[in-house]
Amino acid sequence: MTRFSDSEIAAVYRAIAERRDMRHFRSDPVAPELLVRLIAAAHQAPSVGFMQPWRFIRIVNPLLRQAIYTLSAEEQTKTAQACGERAAMVRRLKLEGIRECGELLVAVLIPDRERYVLGRRTLPEMDICSVACAIQNLWLAARAEGLGMGWVSLFDPDALARLLALPNGTKPLAVLCLGHVDRFYPEPMLQSAGWDERRDLKTILFEDQWGCEPI
Amino acid sequence: MTRFSDSEIAAVYRAIAERRDMRHFRSDPVAPELLVRLIAAAHQAPSVGFMQPWRFIRIVNPLLRQAIYTLSAEEQTKTAQACGERAAMVRRLKLEGIRECGELLVAVLIPDRERYVLGRRTLPEMDICSVACAIQNLWLAARAEGLGMGWVSLFDPDALARLLALPNGTKPLAVLCLGHVDRFYPEPMLQSAGWDERRDLKTILFEDQWGCEPI
Repeated sequence: MTRFSDSEIAAVYRAIAERRDMRHFRSDPVAPELLVRLIAAAHQAPSVGFMQPWRFIRIVNPLLRQAIYTLSAEEQTKTAQACGERAAMVRRLKLEGIRECGELLVAVLIPDRERYVLGRRTLPEMDICSVACAIQNLWLAARAEGLGMGWVSLFDPDALARLLALPNGTKPLAVLCLGHVDRFYPEPMLQSAGWDERRDLKTILFEDQWGCEPI
Repeated sequence: MTRFSDSEIAAVYRAIAERRDMRHFRSDPVAPELLVRLIAAAHQAPSVGFMQPWRFIRIVNPLLRQAIYTLSAEEQTKTAQACGERAAMVRRLKLEGIRECGELLVAVLIPDRERYVLGRRTLPEMDICSVACAIQNLWLAARAEGLGMGWVSLFDPDALARLLALPNGTKPLAVLCLGHVDRFYPEPMLQSAGWDERRDLKTILFEDQWGCEPI
């Protein structure tokens, strides 16, 4: 049988539906064996040409964690300036998760665009897709395990690369706050904040060409 | 309780572990309500600034499907030429899935980089990450439902955009072959083909800086 049982199917949909981009964490530690399970889930992601272009850096030094927090706070200020009338809302976004979460990880992309050509001669950004799929695996597994995760992309990648001594050509794509939470948000935080609404499903599925709706 | 039950957790890990990039399909149709469930799962993905930059185009016209197959076959030839000593292996990769699968979808990115700034002022490629997370959701849900999926990235995105009348600025990131399968590969096809091995988990997780292994 290729199909999972009904209860297994429901569990997969539940993880997809209840995964949230979390910004509030308790500070109790994540068990090391749980962290390894989550990284192993990430590592089972698809990758273009089987290149596995992801690396994860676990931040254990508190000074380094503080430095990453400072980078994000700086970028928050710059983003607020670039957001015009929504500046106040951007300034209210919470970055404390970087300091509070049980585990802080940085996900790094190794583009290696000369060595890996298959499946990306015309779409070099497929390496980015692979890293994103790995992060989504980690996120869903974490949700099932009861751990929250937040993907912070408010940082200067060059500055973060210097902090972590990344080799030339690699790029940090995510600061991942991972940890125990008191509760999961019932809906996306940006939705609750009035930033935007989830689009109607009818508007994202077309038939044969752009703009033709089938459902 | 924020944590799923043990059996739910196991189901999520099972989907992650047993998801495969499929290239062999049966041609029987995918039930329309199942397709809608899968698209709804994709639509629950995280997106930077809640921008939801994904659109899915369902290919129903057989001539259009054939044209997409031709595009991919052309790109396969060019990729083989660019792969030097591995050209023969690239030429053996199967594209018949595009013709045989029950449902053919194209995933399209709407970058909208001027309108959506939050979380991507310094990382514009976050929109690509969002689309990849949506595709990974779809993939995992499909696996649980017993449907195989293959992410084909062998195509010229400009030519595919013209075929589908995509608006300027949008970009197709994936041709998704979706459908019933006789069985799922026990390991990634490129691994079975001797293209590459899964890296040791120890080599993808570092501590505090590049190259320092914690496990």
